[in-house]
Amino acid sequence: MDIQSSLASRVTSLKASAIREIFKMLGKADVISFAGGIPSPELFPTQEWEGLLSDIMANKGKSALVYGVTEGYAPLIELVTERLKRDSIPHDFDQVVITTGAQQAIDLACKSLVNDGEGIIVEEPSFIGSLNSFRSYNAKLFGVEMADDGIDTDKVEEILKKENIKIIYTIPTFQNPTGVTQSLEKRKKLLELAEKYDCYIIEDNPYGELRFRGENVPAIKTMDDNGRVIYVGSFSKTLAPGIRVGFVCCHKDIMDRIVVVKQVNDVHTTLMMQMLVTDYITKYDFDAHIKKGCELYGEKCSVMLSAIEKYFPDCVKYTKPEGGIFLWCTLPEGVDAKPIFEKAVERKVAFVPGSTCMVDLEAPCNCFRLNFSTASNEDIEKGIKILGDLLKEELA
Amino acid sequence: MDIQSSLASRVTSLKASAIREIFKMLGKADVISFAGGIPSPELFPTQEWEGLLSDIMANKGKSALVYGVTEGYAPLIELVTERLKRDSIPHDFDQVVITTGAQQAIDLACKSLVNDGEGIIVEEPSFIGSLNSFRSYNAKLFGVEMADDGIDTDKVEEILKKENIKIIYTIPTFQNPTGVTQSLEKRKKLLELAEKYDCYIIEDNPYGELRFRGENVPAIKTMDDNGRVIYVGSFSKTLAPGIRVGFVCCHKDIMDRIVVVKQVNDVHTTLMMQMLVTDYITKYDFDAHIKKGCELYGEKCSVMLSAIEKYFPDCVKYTKPEGGIFLWCTLPEGVDAKPIFEKAVERKVAFVPGSTCMVDLEAPCNCFRLNFSTASNEDIEKGIKILGDLLKEELA
Repeated sequence: MDIQSSLASRVTSLKASAIREIFKMLGKADVISFAGGIPSPELFPTQEWEGLLSDIMANKGKSALVYGVTEGYAPLIELVTERLKRDSIPHDFDQVVITTGAQQAIDLACKSLVNDGEGIIVEEPSFIGSLNSFRSYNAKLFGVEMADDGIDTDKVEEILKKENIKIIYTIPTFQNPTGVTQSLEKRKKLLELAEKYDCYIIEDNPYGELRFRGENVPAIKTMDDNGRVIYVGSFSKTLAPGIRVGFVCCHKDIMDRIVVVKQVNDVHTTLMMQMLVTDYITKYDFDAHIKKGCELYGEKCSVMLSAIEKYFPDCVKYTKPEGGIFLWCTLPEGVDAKPIFEKAVERKVAFVPGSTCMVDLEAPCNCFRLNFSTASNEDIEKGIKILGDLLKEELA
Repeated sequence: MDIQSSLASRVTSLKASAIREIFKMLGKADVISFAGGIPSPELFPTQEWEGLLSDIMANKGKSALVYGVTEGYAPLIELVTERLKRDSIPHDFDQVVITTGAQQAIDLACKSLVNDGEGIIVEEPSFIGSLNSFRSYNAKLFGVEMADDGIDTDKVEEILKKENIKIIYTIPTFQNPTGVTQSLEKRKKLLELAEKYDCYIIEDNPYGELRFRGENVPAIKTMDDNGRVIYVGSFSKTLAPGIRVGFVCCHKDIMDRIVVVKQVNDVHTTLMMQMLVTDYITKYDFDAHIKKGCELYGEKCSVMLSAIEKYFPDCVKYTKPEGGIFLWCTLPEGVDAKPIFEKAVERKVAFVPGSTCMVDLEAPCNCFRLNFSTASNEDIEKGIKILGDLLKEELA
């Protein structure tokens, strides 16, 4: 019996996320990890949540444990909508739905909109989870280089002119993996292009609230007069990823389909986790919690940037993010970061090799991603020094 | 801007589950509902879970809130595997993975195996959530009638001879919606047919542990020597549906793909809920909990069957399940259950019209599903009397 040849074509060439494979390896070793992508566990409000969960079980246990509606727990939808309104996001035609993490929102949006073989323009590098989701619906990916102010919109237009593009996928604020923030000009331009070439934008914004310096840049969704933008958010980076609670806000005619595919995907997002987030936001100061995160990540980012300046050879370029949890390093052209990654792990320091974030996963890539939200300041200093020494040896 | 015409073809004709639409309506009224499909909320172990959740937050909060591995929480995988071993289920080539409810397992299995336009044979009637998931991957559905001992295997073979079938989807034990249990003979036959015509079986078994009379019939998966059966289970009916924890057991080469598509779908199932189920099974007597459910549902089923005998007109046929939470009523040919459903709701009694469980959703259907797990004995008696009176009027 030949299982391989009986698989659906959409999944045959999919690769497991290298990042998650790296995680598995790291879990076992005593490694300083700059490979992760989570908020600092020291900020997890476990004590508050212990009380809230007790209260949910004691006083609304039955309603927490039955089936919920696919759209989400109504009080949480309301809270998310209110918070989005502060950022001028939902338009009259929009609807907000709770998803099992932002990942599910992206997956369902792609499933609802993209036919086999249709094109998606992505930033290159981009978030591996989204790229793999798009691949799993047989979408054709077109990578466009990132600059310091975001995706190259001229190249985006070149592709739009020639190809059948359904979606432009962007993480405009504190991008994963680069940490780059797209300029307001480019945001306007992307939306113009979506209008002109009749396609949609998925605006993925899990990090947007984590600004630690610089000025806020409005979301593309705020300017979306015609329902072209599917805006995706998450509590994974502001609260905790393990609870799997995210949300999507888009035109109700698109949402109508997203809800139906969510229904056949997981019926609804775990009710208890939706209630937990709702009660936490209602009873505690969520904005203060986020502010604490911003301060912490701003400090950790500075520690990492100073250490890079001190220990990395001068030929290594790197981004200086204004928020989020990642920065991006570029080695001289022609250098492949993957063998360096393997040597770094031997020295007990990990990062994410850039090739995993690319459309072409096989091509050598001279970049890598560093996360600064989870390691202690001491470990950041220590790990960057180890990396710096290794890079000096490798690039000598 | 024309959103409708820009949707992916796989989702354009999908309809929201009528059952879940019925739920929304029912939530608002004072209705005796036989429309649900959940275990009795009076059995939810909310008190035990309050303690377990406190313990998780207090003692392993950080590991509960970070990202987990896509395959699932290792101790839960181990427990599920042990429990399945008692039923002779996992073979050497099999792997067990935790999913966000059984619904996700079915959805991901279909995504991993079925190309656009390939066929899936389904029992008719069948579980609407699975039918809609299959539709959402552009699978071609072939419905095969149910008898008192399960699907008509001769008709299955007729279809296999003519059509390009990738999967036979069956709920062999206490089927949703009929409550029927497939005979051992038919189970063997289905597996033979899958071998002969080179296709897979999805064996969906969320109710199998809820037997209240009769003898256990081995799962098809127990006889699966070649990895043709994808076995799907759930804690939704034995514990609670709101936690969204299910599992899938299948050949590791298929699982390899299911894991990759799960990764891009929701990364992993909510960790806290996986830990909760693990701790509950470890620290409490889960089998005793299930036994309590069986006793309760056996009693409720008897109450419903007696009331049906007493109040329904003789021309109404109905199944007599040996377990699970549903039974299935068949009105005389030519009668449509849908207008009767609407009148029943006016009289504050609800059920699920049979047409929602069919391949052709538009055709009139003379059947309906009754759930007996959630209403009180008094409400069962009262609701069935109201229905009986209505049926006598309608069929007079």
